Amino acid sequence: MDFDAMFTAQLDALKKEGNYRIFAELERQCGAFPKAKSHDADAPEEVTVWCSNDYLGMGQHPVVRQAMKDAIDACGTGAGGTRNISGTAHHHLVLERELADLHGKEAALLFTSGYVSNWAALSTLGARLPDAVILSDELNHASMIEGIRHSRAKKVIWRHNDPEDLDRKLAALPANAPKIVAFESVYSMDGDISPMEEIVEVAEKHGAMTYLDEVHAVGLYGPRGGGVSEERGLAHRITLIEGTLGKAYGCMGGYVTGSAAMCDFIRSFASGFIFTTALPPAVAAAATASIRHLKESQTERQAQRAQVARLRSLLDRVGIPHLDNDSHIIPVMIKDPVKCRMLADILMRDYGIYVQPINYPTVPKGTERLRFTPGPLHTDADLDHLVRALTVLWKQCALAHAVA
Amino acid sequence: MDFDAMFTAQLDALKKEGNYRIFAELERQCGAFPKAKSHDADAPEEVTVWCSNDYLGMGQHPVVRQAMKDAIDACGTGAGGTRNISGTAHHHLVLERELADLHGKEAALLFTSGYVSNWAALSTLGARLPDAVILSDELNHASMIEGIRHSRAKKVIWRHNDPEDLDRKLAALPANAPKIVAFESVYSMDGDISPMEEIVEVAEKHGAMTYLDEVHAVGLYGPRGGGVSEERGLAHRITLIEGTLGKAYGCMGGYVTGSAAMCDFIRSFASGFIFTTALPPAVAAAATASIRHLKESQTERQAQRAQVARLRSLLDRVGIPHLDNDSHIIPVMIKDPVKCRMLADILMRDYGIYVQPINYPTVPKGTERLRFTPGPLHTDADLDHLVRALTVLWKQCALAHAVA
Ligand SMILES: Cc1ncc(COP(=O)(O)O)c(C=O)c1O
Ligand SMILES: Cc1ncc(COP(=O)(O)O)c(C=O)c1O
Repeated sequence: MDFDAMFTAQLDALKKEGNYRIFAELERQCGAFPKAKSHDADAPEEVTVWCSNDYLGMGQHPVVRQAMKDAIDACGTGAGGTRNISGTAHHHLVLERELADLHGKEAALLFTSGYVSNWAALSTLGARLPDAVILSDELNHASMIEGIRHSRAKKVIWRHNDPEDLDRKLAALPANAPKIVAFESVYSMDGDISPMEEIVEVAEKHGAMTYLDEVHAVGLYGPRGGGVSEERGLAHRITLIEGTLGKAYGCMGGYVTGSAAMCDFIRSFASGFIFTTALPPAVAAAATASIRHLKESQTERQAQRAQVARLRSLLDRVGIPHLDNDSHIIPVMIKDPVKCRMLADILMRDYGIYVQPINYPTVPKGTERLRFTPGPLHTDADLDHLVRALTVLWKQCALAHAVA
Repeated sequence: MDFDAMFTAQLDALKKEGNYRIFAELERQCGAFPKAKSHDADAPEEVTVWCSNDYLGMGQHPVVRQAMKDAIDACGTGAGGTRNISGTAHHHLVLERELADLHGKEAALLFTSGYVSNWAALSTLGARLPDAVILSDELNHASMIEGIRHSRAKKVIWRHNDPEDLDRKLAALPANAPKIVAFESVYSMDGDISPMEEIVEVAEKHGAMTYLDEVHAVGLYGPRGGGVSEERGLAHRITLIEGTLGKAYGCMGGYVTGSAAMCDFIRSFASGFIFTTALPPAVAAAATASIRHLKESQTERQAQRAQVARLRSLLDRVGIPHLDNDSHIIPVMIKDPVKCRMLADILMRDYGIYVQPINYPTVPKGTERLRFTPGPLHTDADLDHLVRALTVLWKQCALAHAVA
């Protein structure tokens, strides 16, 4: 049987529709972020990254770097085991306490990534709570979708950010079935923020637990970086808050927080937590330093907001349409995978501007986009350069100037 | 609805059967491994770790630590994005080339863990190859089982390490269905090694692809650390070799290697690869250094083998039964979760010997064990101390001295 021929046929189909992905090969330069060295033949040697999820540049912050290096000197490079079998380091527990405190919860549980935390927590809750029903916002992230699917629990999809639809769907379920309402705070591809209070109220009315993904909000929202649930004073009403250490905190790893019983339950039964080498203690130490810094400092968040607002108004001024939202994410819709890649290629080659074309399966086909994430370390000159380049391309490509 | 009560009820059941897990809280001491500082109230301040999967102590190797720290200074602490969206670093590609070379394959693909590499690769292959059947050794690791389950492909379980059973089961399948034979080289709980050549021959006879987990063998077997498939000259006949960077290589991460088309296929379609922040470039750099070191150096492997053989013969001399196998893993069967924990607790408290009791769900109920992994850094005195302690406990507990 010619397996390679089968693989190639499916890859060819992707290429034909313009959805084949080419990764940009970068070398981040500590101290120069968001500038990075490019290893791609068609790009200038130095480029400016415009699509990073290291939203605040914490991945190069001296305090975070130093914490990681110190822990390497003290404990080495890896955990050396699963959490159960010799892999639990003091640094993990310090981080878990820090995370519980961040969200005002009793406990926290660390995973190797945000993807694994969603997948493992939802699949465990859905599989082990008898007759559980998971009510999932229709635009939830792949990691939640796969976790729900893996649980084999009954799944009900509700309309994106629509508490009324959620209410109707909850009302239609048996009163005594355990119900889990799963949603996000900031949806990362459109940048819209969920009507959290209304969703929580609907869930409470029906006795459902709430499962909130704050992956694109932790570190960024709330006076201590506790996310949108902190900013809106709702954290104590959410049953489970999930987050990542790989985006605004600039490291790697994921977690859930909630009651001690719930975290212990997931710890005890989740395959994706149990059967895998723990995060390197040094990564946990770096994440702890990053969280602590962003609990105190408003500087990074304020500077980020200023640059986000500035880029929006510059784009408005030259008439380049972007999705309107209340977050730090600025999507410019292109709605065609081939055009989207072409634009990104020209920006990279001619202007040293790196923004990855976002295509299927990250977004639905026909909603391809460039997604800009200005941060505190993008200078005004960086913004001006970006807007000038986009203006030239917009004219050349004769793309519609109407609001998308 | 009282969710916490539901969680607590299931935790209480675990506790009653003796399967509730308590993690030892350690602080590894660079340069002193396998000694570690213990943070547990009931343990001496310094303990010797006897159950680490950092099998060769590479997690504290100066070359590996330095590579990680240098990359932190150069590029920072995190990747800052998924592989597609700004998260592909030069260090990832260097590591992927190193891994392809390690196994003599065209290409390699990096994941955040060995768990995720198994789960994502098997679920993608099973789901996207029409009418695929996955033939899985009955003792395969949880990450493979969950990947197969997630794929929803037809699954056939064959008797552990039994090529004849595999042959019969392959023969019963439709000739034109794509078949994937999934198995491991070293089974980590019993330490037995699969009859790889026979399995490969059976698979070839039926035109099946072979999927081999070398997680507990890479770095340890073969003249360059390419695993059992390298040692036996079989790597070129295996379709996909999967491994981890978190055990013998002392870091974190997982990978698959194989044809360029296959790796590109998994890269393009696997949710668990696509939708997650990439490994920190510094972790990739550390893993690369570790692999390169173990490609050249035989010192660590030879010293490990000597200590494994020495511990086996010491145990034999005092009549403590252990599972016989050809690997570096020495399981001492206790067959009762409560006794197993009790023994481990006494070893820790009275002797400073840390060996985690292995219980359900890691092993089937009734096969609870202590699992020792002697390494090159355990001294002869460490081994003598361990065997003296076990001898005392064996007499006290009046456990059977017959071979398990
Ligand atoms: C909403 C959401 N949840 C979870 C994840 C996964 O987090 P991580 O990158 O830490 O795996 C992502 C992105 O990667 C995400 O966008
Ligand atoms: C056979 C096997 N495969 C895969 C894994 C997962 O690898 P990792 O620890 O890198 O997630 C493990 C153990 O953790 C294992 O024992």
